[in-house]
Amino acid sequence: MSETAYPVTERNKVRRLHERGRHDFASIYEILDAAMLCHVSYVIDGQPYCTPTVFWREGNHLYWHGSSASRMLRTQKPGVPVCVTVTHLDSLVLARCGFNHSVDYRSAMCFGNAHIIDDPEEKSRALDSMIDRLYPGRNAELRPSTAQELKATMVIGMNIDQASGKIRSKGIGDEEEDYALPIYATRFPVVQTIGPAEDCPRMPAGVPYPEGLAGFIPGRRLDEIMTESYKKTYGDT
Amino acid sequence: MSETAYPVTERNKVRRLHERGRHDFASIYEILDAAMLCHVSYVIDGQPYCTPTVFWREGNHLYWHGSSASRMLRTQKPGVPVCVTVTHLDSLVLARCGFNHSVDYRSAMCFGNAHIIDDPEEKSRALDSMIDRLYPGRNAELRPSTAQELKATMVIGMNIDQASGKIRSKGIGDEEEDYALPIYATRFPVVQTIGPAEDCPRMPAGVPYPEGLAGFIPGRRLDEIMTESYKKTYGDT
Repeated sequence: MSETAYPVTERNKVRRLHERGRHDFASIYEILDAAMLCHVSYVIDGQPYCTPTVFWREGNHLYWHGSSASRMLRTQKPGVPVCVTVTHLDSLVLARCGFNHSVDYRSAMCFGNAHIIDDPEEKSRALDSMIDRLYPGRNAELRPSTAQELKATMVIGMNIDQASGKIRSKGIGDEEEDYALPIYATRFPVVQTIGPAEDCPRMPAGVPYPEGLAGFIPGRRLDEIMTESYKKTYGDT
Repeated sequence: MSETAYPVTERNKVRRLHERGRHDFASIYEILDAAMLCHVSYVIDGQPYCTPTVFWREGNHLYWHGSSASRMLRTQKPGVPVCVTVTHLDSLVLARCGFNHSVDYRSAMCFGNAHIIDDPEEKSRALDSMIDRLYPGRNAELRPSTAQELKATMVIGMNIDQASGKIRSKGIGDEEEDYALPIYATRFPVVQTIGPAEDCPRMPAGVPYPEGLAGFIPGRRLDEIMTESYKKTYGDT
């Protein structure tokens, strides 16, 4: 492995439209850290499964909440191969022919061997990190987890052995001879945003709005908030 | 298979928090038809892959754009097992302890055998349907596809043999004894919306805004638009 990029093999080679491909850590991490959800793929008896879940990154490791993959992981301690994919949809591209219709997007596929984080201390630390990665400083403000709660939570981790990123951001790309046609062609930007906080009605009076949520401004893009939260908690790693 | 729901086996049983589970066609289709992107999982030599792509539904069939799964499909004509997953993120739930932090969401996992749509007529019809499913009536307004373009496009289809849906919409669910704690607890709604159309600057003057895009109003939720587009094109199927 070079120091700034993942090795490229058959597994993570970008085949279609390879000019959109990325393999350097910085590009992959940027796509990952802007997201709170991923899709985890794994195999049980030859059948693929794809589960959405909350995840986060620490250095070159990913962590996520347990899923039905746990069935399999319980019996295969050395780990099982998984693919963790993150996708941001950035626009709808309406071109002049069907073939050139597209979407702008940023996606990353990460390959590695998933294993259960079983050690109670490591698991506890990982879950605290998950909360703080999403909501900076929040863990210190919460009622501490009980042993029972920790036991009921499954944390899965993996080293990113290989990854590939794909970015499309060019909007419309039509055939040169098609531009003059009287066909409506446009791009609709797509954003995922948060709305105004809906505070729990059972909260006692006088509970202040946490400083760590200062970035959670109504109407703001979730990918920007997630990137900012990540940097507040982990710095530029 | 009953007439209104998928059979439940080990493969699509909802294990964790099964009160969130759905197996009826109506619930699954509603989640699918509100989306334009899915994540497709498949296996090559024991390695799972998870690829985001545009997809659509016709009756109990799903179709999507080719991906690296095509490598495998070319050699396995009878089809290969896949899992197609769709996820909508609806809110961030900040509870009073780490354990009760959550997100509201709607997701569907669909299982079946994927096969290549090779017949030129069937492929052409499928691609036309994809355009119209997203943008009602648009196909008739486009420059027709060339034989070359059709050849360069891979369409994959599958019957949904089994599926499971999962919906969480309850917001905060804390332990009864925790509600009185002086801890900030809230829900941030999350929406994915489109912005104002960015028309292609190379469009000739006088090209009218298509009637089929009347629902593409800036600020509107993409899941609502997609559901509406679906019904306009396919009716209530």
